[in-house]
Amino acid sequence: MSEKTVHATVDDVAALAGVSTATVSRCLNAPDRVVPATREKVMEAIRALNYSPNFGARALASRRTGIIGAVIPTLENAVFAHGIDAFERSLSPGKFALLVASCGYDPEREKQQIEALVARGADGLLLVGFDRDPAIYEWLAIRKVPYVLAWACGDSHPYAGFDNVAGMAAMVRMVLDLGHRNVAMISGLTQGNDRARGRLEGARDLLAGEGLAFRGVAEVPYGLESGARAFAELMADRSITAVICGNDVLAAGALRAAHRMGLRVPRDVTITGFDDIDIASITFPELTTVRVPHTRMGEQAAALLQQLIEGKRGESVLLPTEIVARGTHAPPTARRRFAKA
Amino acid sequence: MSEKTVHATVDDVAALAGVSTATVSRCLNAPDRVVPATREKVMEAIRALNYSPNFGARALASRRTGIIGAVIPTLENAVFAHGIDAFERSLSPGKFALLVASCGYDPEREKQQIEALVARGADGLLLVGFDRDPAIYEWLAIRKVPYVLAWACGDSHPYAGFDNVAGMAAMVRMVLDLGHRNVAMISGLTQGNDRARGRLEGARDLLAGEGLAFRGVAEVPYGLESGARAFAELMADRSITAVICGNDVLAAGALRAAHRMGLRVPRDVTITGFDDIDIASITFPELTTVRVPHTRMGEQAAALLQQLIEGKRGESVLLPTEIVARGTHAPPTARRRFAKA
Repeated sequence: MSEKTVHATVDDVAALAGVSTATVSRCLNAPDRVVPATREKVMEAIRALNYSPNFGARALASRRTGIIGAVIPTLENAVFAHGIDAFERSLSPGKFALLVASCGYDPEREKQQIEALVARGADGLLLVGFDRDPAIYEWLAIRKVPYVLAWACGDSHPYAGFDNVAGMAAMVRMVLDLGHRNVAMISGLTQGNDRARGRLEGARDLLAGEGLAFRGVAEVPYGLESGARAFAELMADRSITAVICGNDVLAAGALRAAHRMGLRVPRDVTITGFDDIDIASITFPELTTVRVPHTRMGEQAAALLQQLIEGKRGESVLLPTEIVARGTHAPPTARRRFAKA
Repeated sequence: MSEKTVHATVDDVAALAGVSTATVSRCLNAPDRVVPATREKVMEAIRALNYSPNFGARALASRRTGIIGAVIPTLENAVFAHGIDAFERSLSPGKFALLVASCGYDPEREKQQIEALVARGADGLLLVGFDRDPAIYEWLAIRKVPYVLAWACGDSHPYAGFDNVAGMAAMVRMVLDLGHRNVAMISGLTQGNDRARGRLEGARDLLAGEGLAFRGVAEVPYGLESGARAFAELMADRSITAVICGNDVLAAGALRAAHRMGLRVPRDVTITGFDDIDIASITFPELTTVRVPHTRMGEQAAALLQQLIEGKRGESVLLPTEIVARGTHAPPTARRRFAKA
């Protein structure tokens, strides 16, 4: 972060852009409520003057609040819990406290929560994935609020994460190597979710490279019930011998549906997950899945964010995923002869 | 909350108590660092003068921040996720935003996080259970920060919750009615945790009423691994036919250990949980457990806290639990003949 003193005021910005100070304020706090042409004029003035809004406790760069904010898509199912937990444990004790908001996979709510955390004086933010309105990144840059993205990787923003595309491709590679050719996928909703989209694309591209395509794809919200329902529907196609799931929660739902349908896993059908959260080891059989580096990712994200807050340069960190081969994969058999459903 | 104007200043309090203003400040912000006699003098002066500290954004009663803070013991395992989620959904949209901190079941960290949230201007707090240093309640009362406790019940503070003692007693009643007499329990750590203590006491008292006692009790941190280890150790007593678990995570761990030991559930051993979180329906067999009213509790806690923030009277809410009889309970058999371990 720049340490130079900022002299421009909101009046200077308003004068240069030829708008009222209320409009400048709206551009910063509710850009959606300003027409694009006006917004662009104001943003240009802000950049030209290197204007940094005096925003509550953030008035003085030296006056840190010790609050770090994290906005995660959900508190449910503990998908993010291990990573957040490691992140929190890696923050300098006594120096930083973590506050978490969950946005229910809703981009609008995520934006409001980012604004609320910054308004409460957050020194820095941990966010999940890269997909969001560019105006949010601009808003954070203007306020000089450092942030680190996790659970994904890319080259446009600081991150500590992993490659969702490569992780899922490796799993599909293993399933094909077992001999499966009739494969389906239960994916999370890909709209506004680069992690879900990366996993779906990773699987699809790997299949395409072998001259194959999915026998079926269901795109559903992450959840046990939605995974179970999608599985039951996909299995109406009796040729399918393997179901790749976008995360462990969907896979656990699929596995429950398989039990209830009288299908034996993995003999009748292979089911795979992604994340390796706790539930992957309490299903029966235990789940074959892709292990996400929750702990190291949380630690690295904390280290990187603290460097950025202290005005130091920090390097993004790409961590590997790995296949955890437990009990839900096997070579394909002519399963449907045995199935009740 | 009282609406009357407060005139006393920190100087008035210091003068009446015969201490420095720094000591008054320490009593409010770090009471542990003040000897009890001094603290008592200062607290008396504060009460006598009806002194309300000017604390950041809380300077004006009318100037609400819209932030509600929740401090929960853990983000792991989704024990609190459903309730927190319902709580958040029930807050007036656009009026309140929720920030969550997790304290790792550590009373000292919980205290720091309560202080951090109040310092950030939280309008009200959601806390879990009743067990905490009375100084925290006093600190909140002096600042007139409303709070609601959940996941428990009592008569000393506003709450929306349920009766851990009665919930667990009902489960043990059902297990005894199946014919079990050699029962063990895997409990969460009871120190500083009234929910864990209530469940253990509820089970113990019900047994005592039948002239029985536990064949074994393990008190362990909530976790899959700790549940699995405790189960394996308890089952060294080959007479045990039922293992009551303090929550679903411990029960899922016990069930996984049973599978790995070659024990068939429920034929060889009955295992029960508490909470009815998602994992209860993805174990195999699905878990017999005590259903906690997560959704209604979250809704009622949000309604009550908003009433208190608006200065209205609110009634505490006691919600019922119920037994969910799934697949892990059965009458006792001479199990150990069949066991590998």
